[in-house]
Amino acid sequence: MTNRNVQAMDEARRSASFDSKKMAEAIYGREEHNRHITAFQRVEQALDTADNMKLPPCYRDMNRQELLLEGLRTGKVVYEDGVDNNCGVFEYVTHHGSLANASPFGLMRFLFIPPVKQLGTDEQIAQWVPLAEAGKIIGSYTQTELGHGTQVRGIETTATFDKETDEFVIHSPTLSSTKYWPGGLGVVSTHTLLMARMILDGKDLGVHAFIMQIRSLDNFKPLPGIELGDIGMKMAYNGTDNGYAIFNHVRIPRTNLLMRHCQVARDGSYTSNPLRQKLAFGGMLSGRGIIARAATFQLAQALTITTRYSVIRQQGTLSPLGEPTAIIAYKHQHSRLLSLIAKSYISLLAWKSANAASADLKSRQERGDHSTLPYIHMLMCGLKAWSTQTAADGAEEARKMCGGYGYLAISGFPEIAASVTATCTFEGENFVAKYLLKGFDAKKLPADMAYMSEYETVAEDKEVCCAAGEDLLAHDALQEIFDYRAATSAREVHEAVKASERAGKSRLEAENTHALQLHVAARAHIERFILSAAVWQLNCLPAATPSAIKTVLGRLISLFGLTAIASPLEPFASSFLGYGYITSSHLKDMQKQIDDLLEVLLPDAIALTDAWSFSDASLASALGCADGDICARLLAWTRQLPINVEAAKNGGVFKKGWEENIRPFLNRDLSHLDVKAKL
Amino acid sequence: MTNRNVQAMDEARRSASFDSKKMAEAIYGREEHNRHITAFQRVEQALDTADNMKLPPCYRDMNRQELLLEGLRTGKVVYEDGVDNNCGVFEYVTHHGSLANASPFGLMRFLFIPPVKQLGTDEQIAQWVPLAEAGKIIGSYTQTELGHGTQVRGIETTATFDKETDEFVIHSPTLSSTKYWPGGLGVVSTHTLLMARMILDGKDLGVHAFIMQIRSLDNFKPLPGIELGDIGMKMAYNGTDNGYAIFNHVRIPRTNLLMRHCQVARDGSYTSNPLRQKLAFGGMLSGRGIIARAATFQLAQALTITTRYSVIRQQGTLSPLGEPTAIIAYKHQHSRLLSLIAKSYISLLAWKSANAASADLKSRQERGDHSTLPYIHMLMCGLKAWSTQTAADGAEEARKMCGGYGYLAISGFPEIAASVTATCTFEGENFVAKYLLKGFDAKKLPADMAYMSEYETVAEDKEVCCAAGEDLLAHDALQEIFDYRAATSAREVHEAVKASERAGKSRLEAENTHALQLHVAARAHIERFILSAAVWQLNCLPAATPSAIKTVLGRLISLFGLTAIASPLEPFASSFLGYGYITSSHLKDMQKQIDDLLEVLLPDAIALTDAWSFSDASLASALGCADGDICARLLAWTRQLPINVEAAKNGGVFKKGWEENIRPFLNRDLSHLDVKAKL
Repeated sequence: MTNRNVQAMDEARRSASFDSKKMAEAIYGREEHNRHITAFQRVEQALDTADNMKLPPCYRDMNRQELLLEGLRTGKVVYEDGVDNNCGVFEYVTHHGSLANASPFGLMRFLFIPPVKQLGTDEQIAQWVPLAEAGKIIGSYTQTELGHGTQVRGIETTATFDKETDEFVIHSPTLSSTKYWPGGLGVVSTHTLLMARMILDGKDLGVHAFIMQIRSLDNFKPLPGIELGDIGMKMAYNGTDNGYAIFNHVRIPRTNLLMRHCQVARDGSYTSNPLRQKLAFGGMLSGRGIIARAATFQLAQALTITTRYSVIRQQGTLSPLGEPTAIIAYKHQHSRLLSLIAKSYISLLAWKSANAASADLKSRQERGDHSTLPYIHMLMCGLKAWSTQTAADGAEEARKMCGGYGYLAISGFPEIAASVTATCTFEGENFVAKYLLKGFDAKKLPADMAYMSEYETVAEDKEVCCAAGEDLLAHDALQEIFDYRAATSAREVHEAVKASERAGKSRLEAENTHALQLHVAARAHIERFILSAAVWQLNCLPAATPSAIKTVLGRLISLFGLTAIASPLEPFASSFLGYGYITSSHLKDMQKQIDDLLEVLLPDAIALTDAWSFSDASLASALGCADGDICARLLAWTRQLPINVEAAKNGGVFKKGWEENIRPFLNRDLSHLDVKAKL
Repeated sequence: MTNRNVQAMDEARRSASFDSKKMAEAIYGREEHNRHITAFQRVEQALDTADNMKLPPCYRDMNRQELLLEGLRTGKVVYEDGVDNNCGVFEYVTHHGSLANASPFGLMRFLFIPPVKQLGTDEQIAQWVPLAEAGKIIGSYTQTELGHGTQVRGIETTATFDKETDEFVIHSPTLSSTKYWPGGLGVVSTHTLLMARMILDGKDLGVHAFIMQIRSLDNFKPLPGIELGDIGMKMAYNGTDNGYAIFNHVRIPRTNLLMRHCQVARDGSYTSNPLRQKLAFGGMLSGRGIIARAATFQLAQALTITTRYSVIRQQGTLSPLGEPTAIIAYKHQHSRLLSLIAKSYISLLAWKSANAASADLKSRQERGDHSTLPYIHMLMCGLKAWSTQTAADGAEEARKMCGGYGYLAISGFPEIAASVTATCTFEGENFVAKYLLKGFDAKKLPADMAYMSEYETVAEDKEVCCAAGEDLLAHDALQEIFDYRAATSAREVHEAVKASERAGKSRLEAENTHALQLHVAARAHIERFILSAAVWQLNCLPAATPSAIKTVLGRLISLFGLTAIASPLEPFASSFLGYGYITSSHLKDMQKQIDDLLEVLLPDAIALTDAWSFSDASLASALGCADGDICARLLAWTRQLPINVEAAKNGGVFKKGWEENIRPFLNRDLSHLDVKAKL
């Protein structure tokens, strides 16, 4: 059995049309790839998780408190590795490849330091950032409240300036103003960046950011007037504490207000910089980019596990001789798998383009040029929304494709799928939608919407796509179809919103009425960017890149485009079809091209997932064995589960369960029933 | 705050166009409704979970072993309530409304007793069923193996007959033959129904069912030669143990072979009934029905929580005055919510029809008439696939619609979404697809496919739907569109399969090539049944049913149909559009009708979810408060979490974390770094 599985994996690996190491260098760059590999090795050695036959600590049947202790143990090693080696890898991800804020220490680089850098004066930055970076304090970011979510507008917590003592008084005036959800807040962090409503001379000046110490560094007790606690188990991220806080007139120095873009003077006078909003965006943009990147990486992890499992696992037969068939041979399995692999590659390539655009904005802003901010803001919002949604749905689908095993903790899937779904919110698409409407309202379409002018009037089933057959594989043919959909749906919804306004609705109401169509238009605009960005990245590959690499990336892009349009299983597929631009004859041609692509890509499946993997142990998956020896690992890990180890000590009996419940159940007095059968 | 929330809930409840109690009686029947209400009350009292301000035991931060203990505690109460009151409710669901096999005792009625009844002789039934029903033994069902899933074909475990001792020898010959996954097997059950390959005189006679005692009833130890264990944490169902078993030449009496449809005599001679296969189907059919029903109920639970939360939770504003707006007012929220509520109602109505058809088959089979078996088998497979997929996707979407709170264990969502997704498999649709192909291959279309003859040739963008505007609300107009899609896609894929066969492929290969189109055709055929069954159930309501009830159910059916076709967010929506039968003008008309339906249904949202709810406590949700007092319940439950209770005893410090990791982290020697800032 073992041999058969190892052999099957070996064959699947040898069937590739390209060298997976060269692919890794093409998509990551050689230097980055090596940095990741060595960083994971270092940390896995320190955490003693490198032996793949040993049950990973995260599966040691832990309760809330034990999970948090394990998160602290691993988070400490990972953070300190980052400090000592300055390699950048673990600023963004944990040793399992999830977002850094899955660790109570990881929150610091992700949510504490960036806003301090953005909102603090040079002095404040010099004071707080080095302490946080070195780990002399533990910072968190405290915004959301029991009654209010991510919109700062609803925040009720107050920071009232007391001129006499030169202090702000932090207070939770209502039950619903309880701070609730912030990572690290409840149990671990010593300091927090607090968002609160500033009151000066009885006047509400809106929400501002403060640095606040919340625990004693000596005995770690919450400072007087502060109630702190954990908010309990979550679907994932249980290695960190998300917390709540209630403030009862807690005093902090005036100088703890972050004063780069606004100031409160000793006499209580207030000044603020008109650029405050614009300057605040930078950090959020890079945050969105990091989230998109991490989500894509987690999708890749999920697909690595599923691909490996699909090569090994047999079910039923496709052969006339009745020989068992590996499930990857089934169309239902490999079509979904390869479409998701394509999405994951495209997502990475698009991210590279967006990241470059974002870096360009940053250097422009340093020169005082904010002109590209609205575009980049829209782009990062849209990309984050698309990437995280794609990753969350994809990881969940990958989990389901492993049948019952995907349901088991030791498969690694529940943690991956649940942690990636946490990154997924809908807000991103709202920004894109508003941007599109604004673009149409302007005198001239912004540059990134210029392609829409090619499709001037809303089509009424008139235009028909002119590509057919194999031509539909061409990236520019696909781009045209994506552009057509995006232009048509954006223009249509813009007209609908205008019509609602003419009928007397406010803009807000009109947008709400057409929210679903706006959602589609936003997605279409982002997706046409993603397609074009992936093609751009392909064309930018160094000349030395082997042609086999370019060929397979080109195929993945075609598969991505064709699937989005012609797969009945894709949500949003119908948005390509409503206008008559794509006919049933196109759909048939596309289906044929998809079938051919799937066939030619199938032997590359394992190599495609090998290419993006840094470490077997980081998957923490009994199914995701690079060597294919799945049965042995599954059984070894199962036998090491504490419940089994303990039962073995009692002759195979789960003692407490037997004594407290099972024995009483079996011995219950049943004289009120008429049971005749005897054992 | 509290008052505002309670008031908002009150208003939302009063805005309904109908009486929710009357709705409950219409969809459940008065008697069944009362039976459920009283059963939940009884059990909640016994389990001490009725007080909604008390943290439910399931959130007491438990590890694997504690979760199992809690599952045993609650399972015992629930099972014994079923035995003593014979009310039928807890044969199928737990006290939280999940499928009965979420409890180690619940497996008995769901997976042990039914196959014994089906496959056992009258004597065997008289011997085992009363013992299981009364709880004198604890039964499980052992089929799947480490290397093989639900297809019995791959089973490797052997049962070799030893003529000399009149015993079967049960053995696991390979690592991959380890029994893996069966519920209750590893820790709790005393007996199991074992599926193993029967070897008689060296001849492999295929897989048969045996009753096997696996643990001592005296000391509960595994019997000699048997290794048993738990397979660890799962996404849900952690109140029960799923287990593994390895057998080393274990002997059981010959008479433990279940012999209703096949026999092994004392001399080792084998006989079997040609009807064996057909007679075995009955129990699986009712099992599928129970799963579909339970999944629909869990979707309803998820939607109840989300609807209640959406009425209370405010975010942003739609008002020109900037007053905060409840999130249910946003189109994105209420359109998804109401479409899901519609799906849940339609799913329940369709289940009632399928259940009646299944009961009809049972009484026919008792008279020896198996003629409707293939149809009912297809129907239950398809309905189960559709209902569970709809429920899993819907519950997950409902969870996401509650933002961050849906991620929190105490919201109740993680457990609901994870347990309903366990019921969801794709196998059902395969059966439907094969049935459709067979139907076309036959000389005459079977009765349930007769509607397809209305659409004889595969459409080539020729026919166009003739309904428009408000006529698209009519159930028969929608039925025609559903029928058209089902007929066209089935016929098209049948021709494609035939063409592949003509090109030299085997039927299996041809089916695999066109697997995705087959999937769509299967779904289309089932969905047209679901629509027609829901309409049928509406028309069958007693004459005394208030017309307001009929009106709202009629609207839900229209919303269901229109959304399936015209919502760009629906997967499979594109399968309606590929043929040109639906044009962009239809889509616009439908969108308008959907918008109108959403507006008129919005005030009914709370009443629609009140109607199907049996108990607040069964939701185990801090968000799902019938009275709307969400903030108070959330904070009360949070404060009662053990990690917080314990920290409070230490002055607010999570002691172990502080001592073992946080203090060492903060005090780490940083002399190798150059940190100038001081605290």
